[in-house]
Amino acid sequence: MQVRKTAIEGLIELIPRVFEDERGHFFESYNKPLFVSLGLPMEFVQDNQSFSVKGVLRGLHMQHEPFAQGKLVRVMSGQVLDVAVDLRPDSPTFGQYETFLLDAKLANMAYIPEGFAHGFVALEDSVFSYKCTNIYHKASESGIIWNDPDLNINWGIANPIVSEKDQELKPLREVFPQAVV
Amino acid sequence: MQVRKTAIEGLIELIPRVFEDERGHFFESYNKPLFVSLGLPMEFVQDNQSFSVKGVLRGLHMQHEPFAQGKLVRVMSGQVLDVAVDLRPDSPTFGQYETFLLDAKLANMAYIPEGFAHGFVALEDSVFSYKCTNIYHKASESGIIWNDPDLNINWGIANPIVSEKDQELKPLREVFPQAVV
Ligand SMILES: Cc1cn([C@H]2C[C@H](O)[C@@H](COP(=O)(O)OP(=O)(O)O[C@H]3O[C@@H](C)[C@H](O)[C@@H](O)[C@H]3O)O2)c(=O)[nH]c1=O
Ligand SMILES: Cc1cn([C@H]2C[C@H](O)[C@@H](COP(=O)(O)OP(=O)(O)O[C@H]3O[C@@H](C)[C@H](O)[C@@H](O)[C@H]3O)O2)c(=O)[nH]c1=O
Repeated sequence: MQVRKTAIEGLIELIPRVFEDERGHFFESYNKPLFVSLGLPMEFVQDNQSFSVKGVLRGLHMQHEPFAQGKLVRVMSGQVLDVAVDLRPDSPTFGQYETFLLDAKLANMAYIPEGFAHGFVALEDSVFSYKCTNIYHKASESGIIWNDPDLNINWGIANPIVSEKDQELKPLREVFPQAVV
Repeated sequence: MQVRKTAIEGLIELIPRVFEDERGHFFESYNKPLFVSLGLPMEFVQDNQSFSVKGVLRGLHMQHEPFAQGKLVRVMSGQVLDVAVDLRPDSPTFGQYETFLLDAKLANMAYIPEGFAHGFVALEDSVFSYKCTNIYHKASESGIIWNDPDLNINWGIANPIVSEKDQELKPLREVFPQAVV
Protein backbone atom coordinates (compact mmCIF):
# COMPACT_ATOMS: atom_id res chain seq x y z
CA MET A 1 0.00 0.00 0.00
CA GLN A 2 1.39 3.36 -1.05
CA VAL A 3 0.14 6.47 0.73
CA ARG A 4 0.33 10.01 -0.66
CA LYS A 5 -0.48 12.93 1.62
CA THR A 6 -2.01 16.05 0.11
CA ALA A 7 -1.58 19.68 1.24
CA ILE A 8 -4.84 19.26 3.19
CA GLU A 9 -4.55 17.55 6.58
CA GLY A 10 -6.25 14.13 6.65
CA LEU A 11 -6.98 14.04 2.91
CA ILE A 12 -4.88 11.24 1.42
CA GLU A 13 -4.52 9.05 -1.64
CA LEU A 14 -4.01 5.28 -1.23
CA ILE A 15 -2.64 2.92 -3.87
CA PRO A 16 -3.01 -0.76 -2.98
CA ARG A 17 -0.71 -3.53 -4.13
CA VAL A 18 -2.30 -5.45 -7.00
CA PHE A 19 -1.36 -9.11 -7.53
CA GLU A 20 -1.50 -10.15 -11.19
CA ASP A 21 -1.53 -13.70 -12.54
CA GLU A 22 -2.78 -15.69 -15.53
CA ARG A 23 -6.35 -15.54 -14.21
CA GLY A 24 -6.56 -11.75 -13.85
CA HIS A 25 -5.72 -9.83 -10.69
CA PHE A 26 -6.47 -9.55 -6.98
CA PHE A 27 -6.20 -6.80 -4.39
CA GLU A 28 -7.44 -5.88 -0.96
CA SER A 29 -9.51 -2.70 -1.32
CA TYR A 30 -9.97 -2.42 2.45
CA ASN A 31 -8.15 -3.94 5.40
CA LYS A 32 -9.24 -2.57 8.76
CA PRO A 33 -6.04 -2.95 10.84
CA LEU A 34 -3.93 -1.57 7.99
CA PHE A 35 -6.22 1.37 7.24
CA VAL A 36 -6.63 2.24 10.92
CA SER A 37 -2.83 2.23 11.26
CA LEU A 38 -2.77 4.79 8.42
CA GLY A 39 -5.07 7.10 10.40
CA LEU A 40 -8.42 6.19 8.85
CA PRO A 41 -11.56 5.84 11.04
CA MET A 42 -12.33 2.69 13.01
CA GLU A 43 -15.45 1.84 11.08
CA PHE A 44 -17.30 2.31 7.81
CA VAL A 45 -21.02 1.50 8.08
CA GLN A 46 -22.27 2.01 4.53
CA ASP A 47 -20.96 1.16 1.05
CA ASN A 48 -22.42 2.81 -2.05
CA GLN A 49 -22.00 2.19 -5.74
CA SER A 50 -23.02 4.37 -8.64
CA PHE A 51 -22.71 4.10 -12.38
CA SER A 52 -22.26 7.31 -14.38
CA VAL A 53 -22.13 7.70 -18.13
CA LYS A 54 -19.22 9.73 -19.48
CA GLY A 55 -19.75 13.43 -18.82
CA VAL A 56 -21.87 13.04 -15.66
CA LEU A 57 -20.88 15.27 -12.76
CA ARG A 58 -22.17 14.38 -9.26
CA GLY A 59 -21.62 16.96 -6.52
CA LEU A 60 -20.57 18.92 -4.68
CA HIS A 61 -22.28 17.12 -1.78
CA MET A 62 -21.75 17.14 1.94
CA GLN A 63 -23.42 15.65 5.01
CA HIS A 64 -23.81 17.50 8.28
CA GLU A 65 -23.58 16.50 11.92
CA PRO A 66 -24.75 14.28 13.46
CA PHE A 67 -24.57 12.33 10.18
CA ALA A 68 -21.33 13.70 8.71
CA GLN A 69 -19.65 11.17 6.42
CA GLY A 70 -15.98 10.44 5.91
CA LYS A 71 -15.65 8.69 2.53
CA LEU A 72 -13.17 6.20 1.13
CA VAL A 73 -13.74 6.59 -2.62
CA ARG A 74 -12.55 4.67 -5.66
CA VAL A 75 -13.42 3.68 -9.19
CA MET A 76 -14.03 0.06 -10.19
CA SER A 77 -14.38 0.66 -13.88
CA GLY A 78 -13.52 3.74 -15.93
CA GLN A 79 -11.93 6.96 -14.74
CA VAL A 80 -13.16 10.01 -12.83
CA LEU A 81 -11.77 13.34 -11.71
CA ASP A 82 -12.56 13.44 -8.02
CA VAL A 83 -12.73 16.70 -6.05
CA ALA A 84 -12.70 17.23 -2.26
CA VAL A 85 -13.24 20.72 -0.79
CA ASP A 86 -12.16 21.35 2.80
CA LEU A 87 -15.12 22.98 4.60
CA ARG A 88 -14.09 22.16 8.18
CA PRO A 89 -14.65 25.46 10.01
CA ASP A 90 -11.43 25.27 12.03
CA SER A 91 -9.17 24.01 9.26
CA PRO A 92 -6.22 26.16 8.18
CA THR A 93 -6.99 25.03 4.61
CA PHE A 94 -10.73 25.88 4.80
CA GLY A 95 -12.05 26.58 1.28
CA GLN A 96 -9.15 24.82 -0.46
CA TYR A 97 -9.65 21.74 -2.60
CA GLU A 98 -7.66 18.86 -4.05
CA THR A 99 -8.33 16.72 -7.10
CA PHE A 100 -7.59 13.02 -7.64
CA LEU A 101 -7.59 11.23 -10.97
CA LEU A 102 -9.13 7.95 -9.89
CA ASP A 103 -8.56 5.16 -12.38
CA ALA A 104 -9.83 1.58 -12.21
CA LYS A 105 -6.57 0.33 -13.76
CA LEU A 106 -4.50 1.92 -10.99
CA ALA A 107 -7.01 0.94 -8.27
CA ASN A 108 -6.09 4.16 -6.45
CA MET A 109 -8.47 5.61 -3.86
CA ALA A 110 -8.85 8.73 -1.75
CA TYR A 111 -9.90 9.16 1.85
CA ILE A 112 -12.02 12.28 2.36
CA PRO A 113 -12.57 13.08 6.05
CA GLU A 114 -15.86 14.33 7.51
CA GLY A 115 -16.50 18.02 6.86
CA PHE A 116 -15.58 18.11 3.16
CA ALA A 117 -17.77 18.75 0.12
CA HIS A 118 -17.22 16.07 -2.50
CA GLY A 119 -17.93 15.54 -6.17
CA PHE A 120 -16.62 13.88 -9.28
CA VAL A 121 -16.95 13.98 -13.05
CA ALA A 122 -16.91 10.76 -15.10
CA LEU A 123 -14.22 11.04 -17.78
CA GLU A 124 -15.40 7.67 -19.13
CA ASP A 125 -18.43 5.50 -18.36
CA SER A 126 -17.50 4.75 -14.74
CA VAL A 127 -18.49 2.64 -11.78
CA PHE A 128 -17.78 4.58 -8.60
CA SER A 129 -17.76 3.03 -5.15
CA TYR A 130 -17.30 4.41 -1.66
CA LYS A 131 -17.37 3.47 1.98
CA CYS A 132 -18.94 5.91 4.49
CA THR A 133 -18.35 6.45 8.19
CA ASN A 134 -22.01 7.23 8.77
CA ILE A 135 -25.41 6.18 7.41
CA TYR A 136 -27.07 8.39 4.77
CA HIS A 137 -29.83 10.68 6.03
CA LYS A 138 -31.39 12.78 3.30
CA ALA A 139 -32.22 15.59 5.75
CA SER A 140 -28.60 16.19 6.73
CA GLU A 141 -27.37 16.51 3.15
CA SER A 142 -26.41 19.78 1.50
CA GLY A 143 -23.94 20.97 -1.09
CA ILE A 144 -22.26 23.65 -3.15
CA ILE A 145 -22.90 24.32 -6.84
CA TRP A 146 -20.31 22.49 -8.97
CA ASN A 147 -19.30 25.60 -10.96
CA ASP A 148 -18.97 27.88 -7.95
CA PRO A 149 -17.17 31.09 -9.01
CA ASP A 150 -15.08 31.34 -5.82
CA LEU A 151 -13.89 27.72 -5.92
CA ASN A 152 -13.40 27.94 -9.70
CA ILE A 153 -12.68 24.22 -10.05
CA ASN A 154 -11.27 23.08 -13.37
CA TRP A 155 -13.38 19.99 -14.05
CA GLY A 156 -11.73 19.49 -17.44
CA ILE A 157 -15.08 19.22 -19.23
CA ALA A 158 -17.35 21.91 -20.65
CA ASN A 159 -21.01 20.89 -20.29
CA PRO A 160 -21.32 18.11 -17.73
CA ILE A 161 -24.57 16.20 -17.19
CA VAL A 162 -25.82 17.37 -13.77
CA SER A 163 -28.96 16.20 -11.89
CA GLU A 164 -31.76 18.73 -11.37
CA LYS A 165 -31.14 18.53 -7.63
CA ASP A 166 -27.47 19.43 -8.11
CA GLN A 167 -28.24 22.30 -10.50
CA GLU A 168 -30.07 23.97 -7.61
CA LEU A 169 -27.20 23.88 -5.13
CA LYS A 170 -26.04 27.21 -3.75
CA PRO A 171 -22.72 29.01 -4.21
CA LEU A 172 -20.10 28.75 -1.49
CA ARG A 173 -20.47 32.41 -0.41
CA GLU A 174 -24.16 31.85 0.37
CA VAL A 175 -23.62 28.67 2.35
CA PHE A 176 -20.44 29.75 4.14
CA PRO A 177 -20.36 33.58 4.13
CA GLN A 178 -17.18 33.46 6.24
CA ALA A 179 -15.42 31.53 3.47
CA VAL A 180 -15.10 34.45 1.10
CA VAL A 181 -13.26 37.60 2.07
CA MET B 1 -33.79 -4.87 -0.40
CA GLN B 2 -35.14 -8.30 -1.32
CA VAL B 3 -33.97 -11.31 0.65
CA ARG B 4 -34.12 -14.91 -0.57
CA LYS B 5 -33.37 -17.71 1.88
CA THR B 6 -31.81 -20.91 0.58
CA ALA B 7 -32.28 -24.46 1.86
CA ILE B 8 -29.07 -23.95 3.89
CA GLU B 9 -29.47 -22.09 7.19
CA GLY B 10 -27.76 -18.67 7.13
CA LEU B 11 -26.91 -18.75 3.42
CA ILE B 12 -28.98 -16.04 1.72
CA GLU B 13 -29.24 -14.00 -1.46
CA LEU B 14 -29.77 -10.22 -1.24
CA ILE B 15 -31.05 -7.99 -4.02
CA PRO B 16 -30.69 -4.27 -3.30
CA ARG B 17 -32.97 -1.56 -4.65
CA VAL B 18 -31.28 0.21 -7.57
CA PHE B 19 -32.21 3.85 -8.31
CA GLU B 20 -31.95 4.68 -12.01
CA ASP B 21 -31.88 8.15 -13.53
CA GLU B 22 -30.54 10.00 -16.59
CA ARG B 23 -27.00 9.92 -15.14
CA GLY B 24 -26.81 6.15 -14.60
CA HIS B 25 -27.74 4.42 -11.37
CA PHE B 26 -27.10 4.31 -7.64
CA PHE B 27 -27.46 1.70 -4.91
CA GLU B 28 -26.34 0.93 -1.39
CA SER B 29 -24.25 -2.25 -1.55
CA TYR B 30 -23.90 -2.34 2.23
CA ASN B 31 -25.80 -0.68 5.07
CA LYS B 32 -24.82 -1.89 8.51
CA PRO B 33 -28.08 -1.40 10.46
CA LEU B 34 -30.11 -2.91 7.63
CA PHE B 35 -27.80 -5.89 7.08
CA VAL B 36 -27.49 -6.58 10.81
CA SER B 37 -31.30 -6.55 11.05
CA LEU B 38 -31.29 -9.25 8.33
CA GLY B 39 -29.06 -11.46 10.50
CA LEU B 40 -25.66 -10.62 9.00
CA PRO B 41 -22.59 -10.16 11.27
CA MET B 42 -21.87 -6.93 13.11
CA GLU B 43 -18.70 -6.17 11.22
CA PHE B 44 -16.75 -6.80 8.03
CA VAL B 45 -13.05 -5.97 8.37
CA GLN B 46 -11.68 -6.65 4.90
CA ASP B 47 -12.88 -5.97 1.33
CA ASN B 48 -11.34 -7.78 -1.63
CA GLN B 49 -11.64 -7.34 -5.35
CA SER B 50 -10.54 -9.66 -8.11
CA PHE B 51 -10.75 -9.58 -11.87
CA SER B 52 -11.13 -12.87 -13.73
CA VAL B 53 -11.15 -13.45 -17.45
CA LYS B 54 -14.02 -15.55 -18.79
CA GLY B 55 -13.51 -19.21 -17.92
CA VAL B 56 -11.50 -18.66 -14.73
CA LEU B 57 -12.57 -20.75 -11.75
CA ARG B 58 -11.38 -19.69 -8.27
CA GLY B 59 -12.00 -22.14 -5.42
CA LEU B 60 -13.11 -24.00 -3.51
CA HIS B 61 -11.50 -22.06 -0.66
CA MET B 62 -12.14 -21.89 3.04
CA GLN B 63 -10.57 -20.25 6.08
CA HIS B 64 -10.29 -21.95 9.44
CA GLU B 65 -10.63 -20.79 13.04
CA PRO B 66 -9.48 -18.46 14.48
CA PHE B 67 -9.55 -16.69 11.09
CA ALA B 68 -12.75 -18.14 9.62
CA GLN B 69 -14.35 -15.72 7.14
CA GLY B 70 -18.01 -15.01 6.49
CA LYS B 71 -18.25 -13.43 3.02
CA LEU B 72 -20.67 -11.02 1.42
CA VAL B 73 -20.00 -11.58 -2.28
CA ARG B 74 -21.11 -9.82 -5.45
CA VAL B 75 -20.12 -8.99 -9.01
CA MET B 76 -19.47 -5.42 -10.15
CA SER B 77 -19.01 -6.21 -13.80
CA GLY B 78 -19.80 -9.40 -15.71
CA GLN B 79 -21.45 -12.55 -14.40
CA VAL B 80 -20.28 -15.51 -12.31
CA LEU B 81 -21.70 -18.78 -11.08
CA ASP B 82 -21.01 -18.69 -7.36
CA VAL B 83 -20.91 -21.86 -5.23
CA ALA B 84 -21.05 -22.20 -1.42
CA VAL B 85 -20.57 -25.61 0.24
CA ASP B 86 -21.75 -26.06 3.83
CA LEU B 87 -18.85 -27.61 5.79
CA ARG B 88 -19.99 -26.60 9.27
CA PRO B 89 -19.49 -29.82 11.29
CA ASP B 90 -22.77 -29.52 13.21
CA SER B 91 -24.93 -28.39 10.33
CA PRO B 92 -27.87 -30.60 9.26
CA THR B 93 -26.98 -29.64 5.67
CA PHE B 94 -23.26 -30.49 6.01
CA GLY B 95 -21.82 -31.35 2.58
CA GLN B 96 -24.67 -29.68 0.65
CA TYR B 97 -24.11 -26.73 -1.62
CA GLU B 98 -26.05 -23.91 -3.28
CA THR B 99 -25.28 -21.92 -6.42
CA PHE B 100 -26.00 -18.26 -7.15
CA LEU B 101 -25.91 -16.64 -10.57
CA LEU B 102 -24.38 -13.29 -9.59
CA ASP B 103 -24.87 -10.64 -12.24
CA ALA B 104 -23.62 -7.05 -12.22
CA LYS B 105 -26.83 -5.87 -13.92
CA LEU B 106 -28.97 -7.35 -11.14
CA ALA B 107 -26.55 -6.21 -8.39
CA ASN B 108 -27.52 -9.35 -6.43
CA MET B 109 -25.22 -10.67 -3.73
CA ALA B 110 -24.92 -13.68 -1.45
CA TYR B 111 -23.98 -13.95 2.20
CA ILE B 112 -21.88 -17.03 2.92
CA PRO B 113 -21.44 -17.64 6.67
CA GLU B 114 -18.19 -18.81 8.28
CA GLY B 115 -17.53 -22.52 7.82
CA PHE B 116 -18.34 -22.80 4.12
CA ALA B 117 -16.06 -23.59 1.18
CA HIS B 118 -16.53 -21.02 -1.58
CA GLY B 119 -15.70 -20.70 -5.25
CA PHE B 120 -16.93 -19.20 -8.48
CA VAL B 121 -16.48 -19.48 -12.22
CA ALA B 122 -16.45 -16.37 -14.42
CA LEU B 123 -19.07 -16.78 -17.17
CA GLU B 124 -17.84 -13.47 -18.66
CA ASP B 125 -14.83 -11.27 -17.89
CA SER B 126 -15.86 -10.35 -14.36
CA VAL B 127 -14.97 -8.08 -11.47
CA PHE B 128 -15.78 -9.87 -8.22
CA SER B 129 -15.89 -8.14 -4.86
CA TYR B 130 -16.46 -9.34 -1.32
CA LYS B 131 -16.50 -8.25 2.28
CA CYS B 132 -15.02 -10.55 4.93
CA THR B 133 -15.72 -10.92 8.64
CA ASN B 134 -12.07 -11.66 9.38
CA ILE B 135 -8.64 -10.68 8.07
CA TYR B 136 -6.90 -13.02 5.59
CA HIS B 137 -4.19 -15.25 7.03
CA LYS B 138 -2.55 -17.49 4.46
CA ALA B 139 -1.79 -20.16 7.07
CA SER B 140 -5.44 -20.72 7.99
CA GLU B 141 -6.57 -21.21 4.42
CA SER B 142 -7.48 -24.57 2.88
CA GLY B 143 -9.85 -25.86 0.26
CA ILE B 144 -11.49 -28.65 -1.70
CA ILE B 145 -10.75 -29.50 -5.33
CA TRP B 146 -13.28 -27.80 -7.63
CA ASN B 147 -14.24 -31.00 -9.49
CA ASP B 148 -14.64 -33.12 -6.38
CA PRO B 149 -16.42 -36.36 -7.34
CA ASP B 150 -18.60 -36.46 -4.21
CA LEU B 151 -19.78 -32.86 -4.50
CA ASN B 152 -20.17 -33.27 -8.29
CA ILE B 153 -20.86 -29.57 -8.84
CA ASN B 154 -22.18 -28.60 -12.26
CA TRP B 155 -20.04 -25.53 -13.04
CA GLY B 156 -21.59 -25.21 -16.49
CA ILE B 157 -18.19 -25.03 -18.19
CA ALA B 158 -15.89 -27.79 -19.41
CA ASN B 159 -12.23 -26.73 -18.99
CA PRO B 160 -11.97 -23.84 -16.56
CA ILE B 161 -8.74 -21.89 -16.02
CA VAL B 162 -7.61 -22.90 -12.51
CA SER B 163 -4.54 -21.65 -10.60
CA GLU B 164 -1.77 -24.16 -9.87
CA LYS B 165 -2.48 -23.77 -6.17
CA ASP B 166 -6.14 -24.68 -6.71
CA GLN B 167 -5.30 -27.66 -8.92
CA GLU B 168 -3.56 -29.22 -5.92
CA LEU B 169 -6.49 -28.97 -3.52
CA LYS B 170 -7.70 -32.25 -2.02
CA PRO B 171 -11.00 -34.07 -2.48
CA LEU B 172 -13.70 -33.67 0.15
CA ARG B 173 -13.40 -37.27 1.41
CA GLU B 174 -9.71 -36.69 2.27
CA VAL B 175 -10.31 -33.41 4.08
CA PHE B 176 -13.55 -34.42 5.82
CA PRO B 177 -13.64 -38.23 5.97
CA GLN B 178 -16.85 -38.05 8.00
CA ALA B 179 -18.57 -36.25 5.08
CA VAL B 180 -18.80 -39.29 2.86
CA VAL B 181 -20.64 -42.41 3.95
C1 LIG C 1 -26.38 9.11 -1.30
C2 LIG C 1 -27.56 8.13 -1.23
C3 LIG C 1 -28.62 8.21 -2.11
N1 LIG C 1 -29.66 7.34 -2.05
C4 LIG C 1 -30.74 7.42 -3.05
C5 LIG C 1 -31.39 8.78 -3.14
C6 LIG C 1 -31.72 8.92 -4.61
O1 LIG C 1 -32.96 8.28 -4.89
C7 LIG C 1 -30.66 8.11 -5.33
C8 LIG C 1 -29.55 8.98 -5.92
O2 LIG C 1 -29.11 9.89 -4.91
P1 LIG C 1 -28.19 11.13 -5.28
O3 LIG C 1 -27.98 11.91 -4.02
O4 LIG C 1 -28.74 11.85 -6.46
O5 LIG C 1 -26.83 10.37 -5.72
P2 LIG C 1 -25.40 11.02 -5.99
O6 LIG C 1 -24.54 9.95 -6.54
O7 LIG C 1 -25.57 12.27 -6.77
O8 LIG C 1 -24.92 11.38 -4.51
C9 LIG C 1 -23.63 11.09 -4.05
O9 LIG C 1 -22.72 11.99 -4.70
C10 LIG C 1 -21.37 11.89 -4.26
C11 LIG C 1 -20.56 12.94 -5.03
C12 LIG C 1 -21.28 12.10 -2.75
O10 LIG C 1 -19.97 11.85 -2.27
C13 LIG C 1 -22.21 11.13 -2.02
O11 LIG C 1 -22.16 11.37 -0.63
C14 LIG C 1 -23.62 11.26 -2.53
O12 LIG C 1 -24.12 12.53 -2.17
O13 LIG C 1 -30.11 7.22 -4.34
C15 LIG C 1 -29.68 6.32 -1.11
O14 LIG C 1 -30.63 5.50 -1.06
N2 LIG C 1 -28.64 6.22 -0.22
C16 LIG C 1 -27.57 7.08 -0.24
O15 LIG C 1 -26.64 6.91 0.58
C1 LIG D 1 -7.36 -14.03 -0.43
C2 LIG D 1 -6.18 -13.04 -0.39
C3 LIG D 1 -5.11 -13.18 -1.23
N1 LIG D 1 -4.08 -12.29 -1.20
C4 LIG D 1 -2.97 -12.43 -2.16
C5 LIG D 1 -2.30 -13.80 -2.14
C6 LIG D 1 -1.95 -14.00 -3.60
O1 LIG D 1 -0.70 -13.40 -3.89
C7 LIG D 1 -3.00 -13.23 -4.40
C8 LIG D 1 -4.07 -14.12 -4.97
O2 LIG D 1 -4.55 -14.97 -3.94
P1 LIG D 1 -5.45 -16.24 -4.26
O3 LIG D 1 -5.71 -16.96 -2.97
O4 LIG D 1 -4.88 -17.03 -5.39
O5 LIG D 1 -6.78 -15.51 -4.78
P2 LIG D 1 -8.22 -16.15 -5.07
O6 LIG D 1 -9.07 -15.13 -5.70
O7 LIG D 1 -8.04 -17.46 -5.78
O8 LIG D 1 -8.75 -16.44 -3.59
C9 LIG D 1 -10.06 -16.14 -3.20
O9 LIG D 1 -10.95 -17.08 -3.81
C10 LIG D 1 -12.31 -16.95 -3.42
C11 LIG D 1 -13.11 -18.03 -4.15
C12 LIG D 1 -12.45 -17.07 -1.90
O10 LIG D 1 -13.78 -16.81 -1.49
C13 LIG D 1 -11.53 -16.07 -1.20
O11 LIG D 1 -11.63 -16.25 0.20
C14 LIG D 1 -10.11 -16.24 -1.66
O12 LIG D 1 -9.63 -17.49 -1.21
O13 LIG D 1 -3.57 -12.29 -3.47
C15 LIG D 1 -4.07 -11.23 -0.30
O14 LIG D 1 -3.13 -10.41 -0.27
N2 LIG D 1 -5.14 -11.06 0.55
C16 LIG D 1 -6.20 -11.93 0.55
O15 LIG D 1 -7.16 -11.73 1.32
